[in-house]
Amino acid sequence: MEFRHLVRQGRFTGPTSGVCPGYTQANLVIVPQAYAYDFLLLAQRNPRPCPILEVSDVGSRQLQEFAQDVDLATDFPRYRVYQNGKLVAEPTAVDDYWQNDFVAFLIGCSFSFEAELVAAGIEMRHTSLGVNVPMYNTNLPLRSAGRLQGQMVVSMRPVPAHQVATAVQVTAAMPRVHGAPIHVGDPMALGINDLAHPDYGDPVPLRPGELPVFWPCGVTPQNAVMASQLPLVITHAPGHMLVTDVLNQKLKN
Amino acid sequence: MEFRHLVRQGRFTGPTSGVCPGYTQANLVIVPQAYAYDFLLLAQRNPRPCPILEVSDVGSRQLQEFAQDVDLATDFPRYRVYQNGKLVAEPTAVDDYWQNDFVAFLIGCSFSFEAELVAAGIEMRHTSLGVNVPMYNTNLPLRSAGRLQGQMVVSMRPVPAHQVATAVQVTAAMPRVHGAPIHVGDPMALGINDLAHPDYGDPVPLRPGELPVFWPCGVTPQNAVMASQLPLVITHAPGHMLVTDVLNQKLKN
Repeated sequence: MEFRHLVRQGRFTGPTSGVCPGYTQANLVIVPQAYAYDFLLLAQRNPRPCPILEVSDVGSRQLQEFAQDVDLATDFPRYRVYQNGKLVAEPTAVDDYWQNDFVAFLIGCSFSFEAELVAAGIEMRHTSLGVNVPMYNTNLPLRSAGRLQGQMVVSMRPVPAHQVATAVQVTAAMPRVHGAPIHVGDPMALGINDLAHPDYGDPVPLRPGELPVFWPCGVTPQNAVMASQLPLVITHAPGHMLVTDVLNQKLKN
Repeated sequence: MEFRHLVRQGRFTGPTSGVCPGYTQANLVIVPQAYAYDFLLLAQRNPRPCPILEVSDVGSRQLQEFAQDVDLATDFPRYRVYQNGKLVAEPTAVDDYWQNDFVAFLIGCSFSFEAELVAAGIEMRHTSLGVNVPMYNTNLPLRSAGRLQGQMVVSMRPVPAHQVATAVQVTAAMPRVHGAPIHVGDPMALGINDLAHPDYGDPVPLRPGELPVFWPCGVTPQNAVMASQLPLVITHAPGHMLVTDVLNQKLKN
């Protein structure tokens, strides 16, 4: 699609929030083939935080299902390159880093369900405030897979008590983009001590009559991979997603 | 559970249809680790015919999620052993064949949704007749994964026209056991020329006012693996499933 051409040519390098409304955006994790089985198994065992949309063929920069005319090495506005678990670069393309043994994993993103929540009349507080959604490390262990393990990361959205059930129903119908909340209410039960200090993103205020609602977050698999200190991992830069050819509607049950 | 002990001791070696009603039964595919990534990717790309319930750790005969006190090498009543794509044995245990590089895949089975269909008032014709469900090869290509490819196998159940919608709704709510039908009506559209001659299982009559309804079938991944002529593959023998600790209810959305 046209937008990916702009990105490929380096003419769009910003966050993709609000771009091409209605189309699914996707997170990215690229690992060498030697680690691909462990990563795919981690996702299979933890589908809520790690909903895989598509897996590339080994070495391929193309996709079959979520986008035609796509180049995985150039069509995200910005990438992050990690060597031995350390961030070493944030380039706008990774053709220079590409290896023939790379496997790319496209992962579902909460942008898809946020559009549905808004359509159901639920305010996205972080959108209203023009900031990133707050995300928190939790004490919920992942089911480990080979060399990969970690804890779940969650995103939080304040929801008025009378809309909690709607929020659950809307997102439960979209399991390929994290699905239903993992927890409603008391943050301490997840090991989150202070909502005002998220581990990623920005804090948002909770108003009287609202409950904090927590969803599994796509940062989870990135963290697990980085914590394992692989020699080389490439991800999208936060907020800088791939815009796919697939409508969010297609991700509904 | 007690039933698996009977199987482990060799005191139950028959088909498991009707055994421990309410509990999920599972299909089995075991491959050497060298092929495990391709198989897991095949399942990721074709979740309808290949719904993975759980993957064992390399070399392990245990499970974490679907059963405690389980031995994957003994707790299926009967197995099939394939060497280079050829059936060489149908033993009641495979401890003698076990290798440290084995990975076992538990795959969802239509037994789980059949119980729900019956509860919804839909007759299972093959059950009424005391025969196996009819299964057919189709012309629907799988999305290939590395060395694995093939066509989808489907199972067929006759459903009265007024109950088709119910059959769709009941099974759509259970994506981990194949989910909704892949096709309703005209078998020719799937490349099936004669319903009276299924490729696996037994024929069942279609009565006036009934439509043939086709679901993705767990024979699909077995066929794909066998067609690729791996040096060694172990599966359950048809109808001889693992009875797990998990209730069918737990597989519902």
